[in-house]
Amino acid sequence: MTAVAELKGFMLPRSPEGEASVVPAPPWLYSGDLLTIEYRTDPGRVAAWLPTGVEPADEDPDAVALIWADWQSCSEAGDELLDPVRSQYKECFAVVRCRFEGEPYSRCVLIWVDKDFALARGWFQGYPKKLGSIWMTRPVEVGRAGPRLEPGARFGATLAANDRRLAEARFTITSDSDTGGFVNALPMLHTRWMPSIETEGKASLHELVTMRSRDVELGPAYTGTAELRLFDAPGEELSSLPVRDPIAGYWRRVGATFDGGSTLA
Amino acid sequence: MTAVAELKGFMLPRSPEGEASVVPAPPWLYSGDLLTIEYRTDPGRVAAWLPTGVEPADEDPDAVALIWADWQSCSEAGDELLDPVRSQYKECFAVVRCRFEGEPYSRCVLIWVDKDFALARGWFQGYPKKLGSIWMTRPVEVGRAGPRLEPGARFGATLAANDRRLAEARFTITSDSDTGGFVNALPMLHTRWMPSIETEGKASLHELVTMRSRDVELGPAYTGTAELRLFDAPGEELSSLPVRDPIAGYWRRVGATFDGGSTLA
Amino acid sequence: MTAVAELKGFMLPRSPEGEASVVPAPPWLYSGDLLTIEYRTDPGRVAAWLPTGVEPADEDPDAVALIWADWQSCSEAGDELLDPVRSQYKECFAVVRCRFEGEPYSRCVLIWVDKDFALARGWFQGYPKKLGSIWMTRPVEVGRAGPRLEPGARFGATLAANDRRLAEARFTITSDSDTGGFVNALPMLHTRWMPSIETEGKASLHELVTMRSRDVELGPAYTGTAELRLFDAPGEELSSLPVRDPIAGYWRRVGATFDGGSTLA
Amino acid sequence: MTAVAELKGFMLPRSPEGEASVVPAPPWLYSGDLLTIEYRTDPGRVAAWLPTGVEPADEDPDAVALIWADWQSCSEAGDELLDPVRSQYKECFAVVRCRFEGEPYSRCVLIWVDKDFALARGWFQGYPKKLGSIWMTRPVEVGRAGPRLEPGARFGATLAANDRRLAEARFTITSDSDTGGFVNALPMLHTRWMPSIETEGKASLHELVTMRSRDVELGPAYTGTAELRLFDAPGEELSSLPVRDPIAGYWRRVGATFDGGSTLA
Repeated sequence: MTAVAELKGFMLPRSPEGEASVVPAPPWLYSGDLLTIEYRTDPGRVAAWLPTGVEPADEDPDAVALIWADWQSCSEAGDELLDPVRSQYKECFAVVRCRFEGEPYSRCVLIWVDKDFALARGWFQGYPKKLGSIWMTRPVEVGRAGPRLEPGARFGATLAANDRRLAEARFTITSDSDTGGFVNALPMLHTRWMPSIETEGKASLHELVTMRSRDVELGPAYTGTAELRLFDAPGEELSSLPVRDPIAGYWRRVGATFDGGSTLA
Repeated sequence: MTAVAELKGFMLPRSPEGEASVVPAPPWLYSGDLLTIEYRTDPGRVAAWLPTGVEPADEDPDAVALIWADWQSCSEAGDELLDPVRSQYKECFAVVRCRFEGEPYSRCVLIWVDKDFALARGWFQGYPKKLGSIWMTRPVEVGRAGPRLEPGARFGATLAANDRRLAEARFTITSDSDTGGFVNALPMLHTRWMPSIETEGKASLHELVTMRSRDVELGPAYTGTAELRLFDAPGEELSSLPVRDPIAGYWRRVGATFDGGSTLA
Repeated sequence: MTAVAELKGFMLPRSPEGEASVVPAPPWLYSGDLLTIEYRTDPGRVAAWLPTGVEPADEDPDAVALIWADWQSCSEAGDELLDPVRSQYKECFAVVRCRFEGEPYSRCVLIWVDKDFALARGWFQGYPKKLGSIWMTRPVEVGRAGPRLEPGARFGATLAANDRRLAEARFTITSDSDTGGFVNALPMLHTRWMPSIETEGKASLHELVTMRSRDVELGPAYTGTAELRLFDAPGEELSSLPVRDPIAGYWRRVGATFDGGSTLA
Repeated sequence: MTAVAELKGFMLPRSPEGEASVVPAPPWLYSGDLLTIEYRTDPGRVAAWLPTGVEPADEDPDAVALIWADWQSCSEAGDELLDPVRSQYKECFAVVRCRFEGEPYSRCVLIWVDKDFALARGWFQGYPKKLGSIWMTRPVEVGRAGPRLEPGARFGATLAANDRRLAEARFTITSDSDTGGFVNALPMLHTRWMPSIETEGKASLHELVTMRSRDVELGPAYTGTAELRLFDAPGEELSSLPVRDPIAGYWRRVGATFDGGSTLA
């Protein structure tokens, strides 16, 4: 007897019914809260994170955004929403800007998430995800155990991996804002990468891709002052993007849909 | 040299500076979302969960509430709010009603939380906390990855402990509500309990206490239809309160302050 | 300023110094304990898990091994051994046998691990890893809280993912053994898979690869009787390989080195 | 209808069948690996951790042991051994010596564990347990991914809580040893503590107790050189016992039974 039906499923593991995949096929819907801390790092540090053939941004090339997000997400059918262990996750990611073939892009250079479906989705999209523990203060509407979304509101956010703190942020709202920041505002330019199974082989997957969200729905945005501390750790390089010059912090609710991208190279 | 200064701290571990306690002293502030599933269990099942000397409620004595809560909480100083790993937690708990010395009470008979500071706080209050993994769908204000707070909105909630599902709930909003349910609405009647270190000894701590929150601030409440499944597991008895007759589900944002209680017996 | 130095690192995230990769480059060294439960499933069930072009094994084609492993592992330099959060992990995986171009192979069709470095390593090797919670009884040399490695010793092992039990095994040693089982004893035939970022695109990575360990060092092996229970869960298909006919269980300590494989197609 | 049968169970939650208790009744059996790092801290620092009425040890009063342990444990019936998520846990704890009414004792002043049954057991015994993440290198018998139990073997151990590293140790075996250290070798003198539910009330539980293990079975012991780093963190005071003068490290397998203790005051 030979296998007669192709295995099914969007990602690994591929299976007879296609139900075992670590994540269902896109489109993927997202609703969440984002805290963005923007700053300038030492000159040239961002450039060192760009792959060959990709140039730093023309303006403000040393700008970095470290972003915390608390997401609920699901596939189009939305079944995961009723099994929330499979639809909620948090992440923290570092974004820079760059140019490729004359076009400006945002690029995620480091990212930590706390669920496997989000990690796998990231590898598909070129987000270089690892696991971490991510926490961010939530605004509240009743009671005193949290800030209201108004001037003076204070938020904290932390990132840890392998039982070490990697980043800590504090943010205080000073006013409403028209934007949620500028560093993560462009189409993404990501690298998808998988080395060859053969020791001396050329990479089996090495693509430069772009993507952007559709159906973006934004809640009111707030801006304010922010502090950010980055910590050294073995197996990490986030601290190679030290804070030289704080720009601002932003807090915003965001809804969006991801439905694939394009291969550029 | 003898220890000259008393050790400090609200709970264990007591330490020279009093900073090591698993939780700071009350008052404790809470802001969170509650999903309450109310139902009637088989006659007499609730009574079996009451300690000697405590009677079932006069009316509807077999009513049970299984409640999921996603909290942010802190002490009066509020420092934990900026280190949210120490201020956010989720819990799932079973509440029944009873009478003691003629007065009606609510009583939490089982509860699972996902942080140690919440577990310790519970033992102090007579909430019989164990660790579990608790998840509940969040309402959203932007995007499509979650329900809006309106009729038709669907929520899921799950409880697991020791890698086994113990409970799963589904809730669909049908309308606004004046209440968040009736089973958990009375002052709490709890037992604080610690056996003697001596094998044959009488309990070292065996108190009947009552407490209720102050400064309660309520957001809009919603009611609707609910389904609840309870699962058997070794080391657990939640399934001894089976669903015989569903009553209703409720969703509400709640803020409150806890500041101690009274010993009744 | 253009990026002048290529980014470094074995896997994502690629970084200026190559230290941020979720896992260092091979060779990877492993030392661990394996509990293997072998059984026959319903005829044709294994064949349904094989990709097009891969045939079931000639003999005993419905044999399955469900294997629990508790590993310590590291790269050649071994630094992770002194930071054990980065070197210890547990996994549970389902293995079947098959034939490709006339040669017999073992093939891992499902696998769960509890660390990101192990998950990423699996994706590199074609092990279709997801995250899970894996536990297995440890043999002991002193005290009474565990079995000794001798006839009558009893072991339990469990697998959960997304807060649901997926598998539970019990194993009792009856005697020494010459082997640790036959289903996972052949070179591995794995699929490496990554869909295209473009919605209608052909897979960006779709390789059939083989690999086998070197420098295998085996401790004494034990065999015995085993029971295995598999549970249904959304997003999972392990229960499509039901136990029809138990074969045997095996317990063995194993050391090995992985140093790459070969692409077959 | 009145509750006619008393609730059952060793600890909370007390329930109709007594199965829901966070931990079954003693005796509790333990088998595990211990890594002990002994050192002297600044003069008087240990004394500051002793309660009123308890004196520092006559000799070497500033000696501290920080101990990592990887346990398997169970109740007398031993059912948990076959459901290992309920029988395995790790802990890290700080022990000092003291005198009470002329007798010498060991005393655990801080301890972190990674399971709720172990935390509850600790509160019963006066071990002031909080949750943490604990990792320690395991010796291996096959393969190269770990040390063998012999001179030159190197071990690492780490402790984190609330996503922060609190302690890191390194240990290198230099020779066999007759002991596993002296700081944790005496009967334990612990405080059981629970504040009153009433704001101004005297503690509801405030006992000085002693206990020691029986049926101790020891594996071969090893000694060697050790390094220890302690880190500051909010809500912690471990770093108030800084390393002034390293003594030695020890590694040993230990089996023991705990079966209650005595109240001293």
